[in-house]
Amino acid sequence: MSEKVKIAIIGASGYTGLELIKILDNHKEAEVKYITSRSYSGKKIKDVFPVVLSLKNNLEISFVGELKKENLNNIDVIFLCLPPGESMLYVSNIKNNFKGRIIDLGADFRIKDEKEYEKWYGKTHILKEVLPEFVYGLSELNRQKIKDAVYIANPGCYPTSVLLALAPILKKGCFKIDSINIDSKSGVSGAGKKLKEDYLFLNLFDNFYAYSATMHRHIPEMEQEINMMSKEKFSICFTPHLLPVDRGIFTTIYLNLKKDSDTSDIEKDISGYFNSLYGNEIFIKFLGENIPRLKDVIGTNTAQIGFIFDERTYTIKIFSAIDNIIKGASGQAVQNMNIMFGFQEDEGLRLNSIYN
Amino acid sequence: MSEKVKIAIIGASGYTGLELIKILDNHKEAEVKYITSRSYSGKKIKDVFPVVLSLKNNLEISFVGELKKENLNNIDVIFLCLPPGESMLYVSNIKNNFKGRIIDLGADFRIKDEKEYEKWYGKTHILKEVLPEFVYGLSELNRQKIKDAVYIANPGCYPTSVLLALAPILKKGCFKIDSINIDSKSGVSGAGKKLKEDYLFLNLFDNFYAYSATMHRHIPEMEQEINMMSKEKFSICFTPHLLPVDRGIFTTIYLNLKKDSDTSDIEKDISGYFNSLYGNEIFIKFLGENIPRLKDVIGTNTAQIGFIFDERTYTIKIFSAIDNIIKGASGQAVQNMNIMFGFQEDEGLRLNSIYN
Amino acid sequence: MSEKVKIAIIGASGYTGLELIKILDNHKEAEVKYITSRSYSGKKIKDVFPVVLSLKNNLEISFVGELKKENLNNIDVIFLCLPPGESMLYVSNIKNNFKGRIIDLGADFRIKDEKEYEKWYGKTHILKEVLPEFVYGLSELNRQKIKDAVYIANPGCYPTSVLLALAPILKKGCFKIDSINIDSKSGVSGAGKKLKEDYLFLNLFDNFYAYSATMHRHIPEMEQEINMMSKEKFSICFTPHLLPVDRGIFTTIYLNLKKDSDTSDIEKDISGYFNSLYGNEIFIKFLGENIPRLKDVIGTNTAQIGFIFDERTYTIKIFSAIDNIIKGASGQAVQNMNIMFGFQEDEGLRLNSIYN
Amino acid sequence: MSEKVKIAIIGASGYTGLELIKILDNHKEAEVKYITSRSYSGKKIKDVFPVVLSLKNNLEISFVGELKKENLNNIDVIFLCLPPGESMLYVSNIKNNFKGRIIDLGADFRIKDEKEYEKWYGKTHILKEVLPEFVYGLSELNRQKIKDAVYIANPGCYPTSVLLALAPILKKGCFKIDSINIDSKSGVSGAGKKLKEDYLFLNLFDNFYAYSATMHRHIPEMEQEINMMSKEKFSICFTPHLLPVDRGIFTTIYLNLKKDSDTSDIEKDISGYFNSLYGNEIFIKFLGENIPRLKDVIGTNTAQIGFIFDERTYTIKIFSAIDNIIKGASGQAVQNMNIMFGFQEDEGLRLNSIYN
Repeated sequence: MSEKVKIAIIGASGYTGLELIKILDNHKEAEVKYITSRSYSGKKIKDVFPVVLSLKNNLEISFVGELKKENLNNIDVIFLCLPPGESMLYVSNIKNNFKGRIIDLGADFRIKDEKEYEKWYGKTHILKEVLPEFVYGLSELNRQKIKDAVYIANPGCYPTSVLLALAPILKKGCFKIDSINIDSKSGVSGAGKKLKEDYLFLNLFDNFYAYSATMHRHIPEMEQEINMMSKEKFSICFTPHLLPVDRGIFTTIYLNLKKDSDTSDIEKDISGYFNSLYGNEIFIKFLGENIPRLKDVIGTNTAQIGFIFDERTYTIKIFSAIDNIIKGASGQAVQNMNIMFGFQEDEGLRLNSIYN
Repeated sequence: MSEKVKIAIIGASGYTGLELIKILDNHKEAEVKYITSRSYSGKKIKDVFPVVLSLKNNLEISFVGELKKENLNNIDVIFLCLPPGESMLYVSNIKNNFKGRIIDLGADFRIKDEKEYEKWYGKTHILKEVLPEFVYGLSELNRQKIKDAVYIANPGCYPTSVLLALAPILKKGCFKIDSINIDSKSGVSGAGKKLKEDYLFLNLFDNFYAYSATMHRHIPEMEQEINMMSKEKFSICFTPHLLPVDRGIFTTIYLNLKKDSDTSDIEKDISGYFNSLYGNEIFIKFLGENIPRLKDVIGTNTAQIGFIFDERTYTIKIFSAIDNIIKGASGQAVQNMNIMFGFQEDEGLRLNSIYN
Repeated sequence: MSEKVKIAIIGASGYTGLELIKILDNHKEAEVKYITSRSYSGKKIKDVFPVVLSLKNNLEISFVGELKKENLNNIDVIFLCLPPGESMLYVSNIKNNFKGRIIDLGADFRIKDEKEYEKWYGKTHILKEVLPEFVYGLSELNRQKIKDAVYIANPGCYPTSVLLALAPILKKGCFKIDSINIDSKSGVSGAGKKLKEDYLFLNLFDNFYAYSATMHRHIPEMEQEINMMSKEKFSICFTPHLLPVDRGIFTTIYLNLKKDSDTSDIEKDISGYFNSLYGNEIFIKFLGENIPRLKDVIGTNTAQIGFIFDERTYTIKIFSAIDNIIKGASGQAVQNMNIMFGFQEDEGLRLNSIYN
Repeated sequence: MSEKVKIAIIGASGYTGLELIKILDNHKEAEVKYITSRSYSGKKIKDVFPVVLSLKNNLEISFVGELKKENLNNIDVIFLCLPPGESMLYVSNIKNNFKGRIIDLGADFRIKDEKEYEKWYGKTHILKEVLPEFVYGLSELNRQKIKDAVYIANPGCYPTSVLLALAPILKKGCFKIDSINIDSKSGVSGAGKKLKEDYLFLNLFDNFYAYSATMHRHIPEMEQEINMMSKEKFSICFTPHLLPVDRGIFTTIYLNLKKDSDTSDIEKDISGYFNSLYGNEIFIKFLGENIPRLKDVIGTNTAQIGFIFDERTYTIKIFSAIDNIIKGASGQAVQNMNIMFGFQEDEGLRLNSIYN
């Protein structure tokens, strides 16, 4: 039996870090060696997060404050779960001493134009020269590049829900699109684990509202990838909202077509584009002219996508649903690792939702 | 002390009927005389709906199966809470014998073009000739006509949330609008009180999805009123979604402007339109460039509206929040009655939300 | 028209303070003159809490940091909404200069034995000598004393739900009770407005658990009152739990009878005790052998109570439901003010729940 | 590689049936061959339940109306997911032709005294003579008997949550217990998949109440097993409540001790009993004097149990949390199958909860 891939998770006490530990707990080919957290250094994970008591292999693991330089040699993959600005700092520190793969779940290496990064994130990029080495890890669309990559910039949660839904149509490029409005609704975990009054139960339960209505940081990431898919250049109008649930993103996309578009057979055409791009994908379920439901994807690595053409207004509506922490973060990160190492693509990811 | 207005509620056991009883329980000028329900005929309301135990005046009232012809004379206002097709039947039956006011919370008299009605509701209209007598009861926009009306067609819940948000801009008519996309999210009570598998707790809790994605029956109602507000004719692309909460509608509207629009001062202009139209309204709170929250309006007759201009894409986003059963149905119906009779407009409607 | 009672609310930015403002907004006989808050001093309430936008009379009121000494003369009633220890400090500061009534929603004056207070609250009581002047404001049970009181110690939320349910049986004193187990479930607002990780949405949504399982501070308050109702002395075993909802307390009480009790006619007897004690109460609905539902009381000042006798185990189970912030705090405080001033007891309190 | 165990699930379209399919989808040693459903006969599971789209092996399986007699030979294990009365009918029909194992998730074979069964379930038992052959499948407590069993009566959800919590203390039998009060709170899925008004979203969301307050059918099952654990005979006072969540049971047990009990070292003693009984169990986490949280067990096969001794009232409080559909039904059924066949006990059951 071959040796397992050895893993370190940097910033392991946040939602995406914990989810990685959970997914990897059932991964036949991987072994979690180190998990870091400044706040919980020296503590066993099970003493800090009672929710992990159902873990099998990683139940006794302890957090370390930092990964020591001499341990870098024992590691094959580093997953970075760090806030904006900290990933590039970390990579810049270890780059010369670490020979393995890096999968960054943060934002620092997603945007290839460092000026755009600086504009939206308000930080100077300190590793511009490394940006081209990071492959954008949207698994189903960039599988070939991911196979050969050493560094992965794992996509944001909203971009995953949007780009998978748009790709079949934009890559084909045969509709005349006037404008793209994207209305996303996310469970609260999307906001991360911050102690803010806004995130108290009483402020979110039985509530719903939009936020960051013109300036969400996932916009430049989406536009960059949209403009790589499409011959035409698009700006998107994007609005995120907070749903009173733990998990999941439901996105409704409005593609407003020009009024002189030829729309005979449009439903058949669109179904064709989706089936040809995703027909063999295990983690994308195309529902045709049916609408996905958030609950069916929560807890899974699956994206469900459907569409409807509104002939009265020449609008293609696309609906997509994912689990923001799994397909939108840690699940896709493991899927990318599986692709990089030639493992079965769904190893560790045969996850099912709560059925009722 | 003058006599109270006497009221009958037809179809009183559904959500909007019960809400009317509750609102009118605290109304100084009105008295509920009859409430009808075929299923609960002869039963006291408190024996059927334990939730009414906090009523003060109407606690001992019983349902009758039908309002008798001889009792029509004792009634000043009839509220109709009936499914599509039944309101027109009811009005056609009593019309000649009833001299009072009628406020119809159903859909039969909202759409003035009977062919549109027939297309969207699948029913022949049996009272075309009476359609012009029904005033569309969007209180703040049609107050003058409501004052003089005998018959009111009370607006649908989605149309209320949409039209109040669009009116200040469309009435002014000074933007070049390319397309209007409307993304609404409603609490489950919007679906009415039906025993369907879709409405079970387990199918809605922790869930979210779109429905009726191109053919919701509120579309022709909205387009009719939009096209009365605006010189230009618009088709709207509308998508309703179900939120896992009891109550409330949050609507996000995307007004895509033509790229050659002049948008200098656009925020100031829009604020001006809202303030001039709604500055004196007690039930509309314009929040400027802030976003309303669903929870702040649940349980109230207030609409909260805010907007943001996305200069990158030339899109005006308007956000509105209402309680679908109150401002979107029974509250607005009572507001209309208050206007018709010259009562204080907020009589019975000084309702506050749960504060936390 | 007689003058309105003038009110100051000290500590008005917490849940109970805001609820007082809301209730008093519709109170014909009362006027809110001052609301204090150290954090929001100088700010308008509507700029801090958008939820108040549906207020009518108090919409433009501003917080003051402290109530000035010279303003004490303009005030008829002070409501104290302060944490343990701060109420007694406040009363000790103003006592000599304030001639009006005080209704304390906090805990400092509920427990008459200052040693018990010190044991459970960990603080020395600085106003022992004033303790006897404070009447325990359980409205329905102490109405006569409240009428004549100048100072009221308003009951805790759990004690209100428990004592109203136990009183008819314990006052009668005709059952041989072995033990009393009390299992309460409270909405999250019961915990107050603290920024703690425990109270984040993600930690409470879809969750449920017990807390403070043997040492909740409401225990001595309950035992004190129980032992005043009953000839026999009882210790109670009390367990609070957190429900994933905003509001409301549902309490299940197990009265374990001795096995040699005579239980012929026990159901009839118990119903008799409840009806004779509460038959004329507007805010207590006795449901006989039916079980109340939390939702029917949320948003109201009503307590609903039912019971069942389990003959297999000689156990009387009593079920009670209240809104913790209204009947369990601010609503009962206003009810007590109404009793003190001879107003209609339900003035300002004709509140209905959300019906669906 | 040895052949897989072949499985039929009878009544597979309910919650426990679907959960079995989901669990077995990842089971290395088992293969689902037939799933029956009268309503969905001939239909693919994925066309009826979109939630299964994340299945890997069982995605293409179709329901059959009935399992044919000639197919009984191809089956090693039958799981019965049938309502009361139907399991015994089914077993009586196939008994002579089926040589494999039967695991009954229903109630018909749990109660060994057919008169008790008839009293609580209102049905004559038609297979009394087979009752002794069914082993009560509480995995951790009856492991030896389960190993040798051909027929298993899988425990009810409430009994699982209660019996695992009581066993360490009752088996030891060294406390003088006066009375046992059990207060359980269950997610809505516990009620099964019935189209009743009570189970509509609007009736359960933001709500909480007790039901079946003296006569729940799980009582005789619990008393039977309690009285097998304990030398003394106990009647239990049990109250189930409905929580506004999908899944999970949280049980609070009050063991009222006689006042002359020796309680020195009681905490240490109780911890000792739990550790000695469950120290090696993978699916029971004993938390000592900490309180479990519902969310940490939802989606898992783990029971979490803690306790606190209330010295003021001589009461041991025990708290237990399980997922009602997994540990309380389908998960424990698969655990029992694993024990019967000598598979790893957690095969297919390495399930983790949603972490946030």
